[in-house]
Amino acid sequence: MSQNSEKKEYVTYGRAQNCDCGCGCALSENAVKITGCRFALSIMDDRYISIILGALEKTKTDKIWQETGRLSTVYRGKQCHVEDAVKACFVNAFTEGVHMTMEMTFSRGCPGDVEADVYMAEDDVLQNESQIKDIHFPVNCKIALYPMGVTNYMEHIAKVVNHAIDLGIYDKSTHYCTLLKGDVHELFSYFDYVNTYCSENLSHYVFEVTLSVNSPTAE
Amino acid sequence: MSQNSEKKEYVTYGRAQNCDCGCGCALSENAVKITGCRFALSIMDDRYISIILGALEKTKTDKIWQETGRLSTVYRGKQCHVEDAVKACFVNAFTEGVHMTMEMTFSRGCPGDVEADVYMAEDDVLQNESQIKDIHFPVNCKIALYPMGVTNYMEHIAKVVNHAIDLGIYDKSTHYCTLLKGDVHELFSYFDYVNTYCSENLSHYVFEVTLSVNSPTAE
Repeated sequence: MSQNSEKKEYVTYGRAQNCDCGCGCALSENAVKITGCRFALSIMDDRYISIILGALEKTKTDKIWQETGRLSTVYRGKQCHVEDAVKACFVNAFTEGVHMTMEMTFSRGCPGDVEADVYMAEDDVLQNESQIKDIHFPVNCKIALYPMGVTNYMEHIAKVVNHAIDLGIYDKSTHYCTLLKGDVHELFSYFDYVNTYCSENLSHYVFEVTLSVNSPTAE
Repeated sequence: MSQNSEKKEYVTYGRAQNCDCGCGCALSENAVKITGCRFALSIMDDRYISIILGALEKTKTDKIWQETGRLSTVYRGKQCHVEDAVKACFVNAFTEGVHMTMEMTFSRGCPGDVEADVYMAEDDVLQNESQIKDIHFPVNCKIALYPMGVTNYMEHIAKVVNHAIDLGIYDKSTHYCTLLKGDVHELFSYFDYVNTYCSENLSHYVFEVTLSVNSPTAE
């Protein structure tokens, strides 16, 4: 191992950003403004390929940067446009009677982030909202917020969970996550609140969300 | 809002554990030892219900505590038994030619955790490994590690990613996650390394993993 490892290209997170504290806090000001969402749709149906491709085709993504891999797709750009596009993907994939889940990872401020792979649109005019705003369906949801690099992270988590309680979309707290339920628009509006709260109060956060529709499991 | 909120039951993370720093660090010694894994299988096939139920039925879970909800299942107990059971679920659900993903959240040391909903087996004799050890198939994987409450978290992330490089299962780094690929046993052996590293070096961590088999997406 020791002989081979000399030739290996290792990662250097926490040391490459010219900071001395090991957190990589010397992230450039522009990279800090990039909101990202990595997501994956899972369609429990033989038609999963056509449903996913159909949803992607209907979704306008001119105002964000995107890349699709084997496991997931990532959108990067301004928070409002990333949220608009990922919401549209989910709504466009919704198929009556078909069980579907979507796993989403919203993030901003990672010290390992780069000021590349991004498109920051000039305006805030949403591209998809007008096409999807009248489509309503109930969604079950689990969330977990990870405020990074701070000792009082539990207080930030409590803050956003309590806001869900205020909004009436809170279902219950359970091990390792919080469960929510509501109309698809209520939930995405809440995700916008969380992303805004985090970008204003935290230098780096990760917000994990899983959505589920048409589950055959009884409540 | 202000009138209603007086009656609401809010969460109090970071304040309920009698610590003054807002992190809830007064977690009991026994709760600290509980490893949990919340996971969900997604089967992209009309037969998804029978495949999942068949996998769960084949998996022995006497040495852990478990609970299944609409969105996921959670196992809690000793690290070795939680890993053994969740690995068996995945291997038992594997179906030739069927695209399947599994989202897993391993965690230990959450300040909001309680010393309940757990079964700590007396011995370390694995219940499932002997039945699955000869079943091999290639898996694509994405991981993200969240060391909580520490400023040098990027160094811990680099440490575990570099170990994947040493093992030859590293594929590439991308936005918000690291991609791995390898035989199912190689990957679960690596997850055991990560959980062990984290429980020895961090008071609270979350380790997110998504596995994928038989994806129709070209590499």
